Amino acid sequence: MSARPADSTCPVARTIDIVGDKWSLLIIRDAFDGVRRFSQFQRSLGIAKNILAARLRDLVDAGVLRTEPAPGGSAYQEYVLTEKGEDLFALIISLRQWGQDYAFGPGEQHSVLVDAATGEPVPRLSYTTPEGRPVQGRQTRVRKVG
Amino acid sequence: MSARPADSTCPVARTIDIVGDKWSLLIIRDAFDGVRRFSQFQRSLGIAKNILAARLRDLVDAGVLRTEPAPGGSAYQEYVLTEKGEDLFALIISLRQWGQDYAFGPGEQHSVLVDAATGEPVPRLSYTTPEGRPVQGRQTRVRKVG
Repeated sequence: MSARPADSTCPVARTIDIVGDKWSLLIIRDAFDGVRRFSQFQRSLGIAKNILAARLRDLVDAGVLRTEPAPGGSAYQEYVLTEKGEDLFALIISLRQWGQDYAFGPGEQHSVLVDAATGEPVPRLSYTTPEGRPVQGRQTRVRKVG
Repeated sequence: MSARPADSTCPVARTIDIVGDKWSLLIIRDAFDGVRRFSQFQRSLGIAKNILAARLRDLVDAGVLRTEPAPGGSAYQEYVLTEKGEDLFALIISLRQWGQDYAFGPGEQHSVLVDAATGEPVPRLSYTTPEGRPVQGRQTRVRKVG
């Protein structure tokens, strides 16, 4: 690929160009956790306001987040995942499961993904084909364009 | 969370702290595509040598890549995914599938993930429970520690 991922014919590179930045990924994670207001993101992330504003604007421009007026007629606006943004759930899951496996010491506690209806922990998820067959990296290769 | 993702009790944040950077993600993608040598990464990514060297060193220190001597007794060393690195396959899949869905115009060509044995395109993968049930973001929430 070139040094300009947005021009790449690789879908991985194009996604990285849109969301492959620490703050963007953390903002998306927070949005999945129900964070909606600028001040909430700021408190959660401890990020400089100008950087947060730029990242939120980029994510809105990319169609990952949209703004809507806060309920109750207040002057605040809120940031909400679009359908395109909601489809980043698999990305967040992949980050979460790898972190659970590799980024915590024995006995060290971490947050847990639970079923919103039952409160039960969501079981380990794996990427499977429509027939339910799991796929590992070694079984695949990438066929380039052209 | 705090501004220091490495201290977070959120597994998503800890993974982002290790691999949540554009170049690190592109290096990992290239490693899955069979890139092994410094010069190959450099050509593929068009990245400055000092930045590439730093990112490769960080990924080796994090246990995502390991170095090994190039075959044939040459003086080169190669960078290879560890088992921990191979387990980032789901992350690369999530980036790839979202990019395929949202980052290409109609008729615009992109690279395709194929079965290494048969050359057939890998079907759409989805995250499922051990019982084969798909899980969507809206069905879940995060239970924080403590």
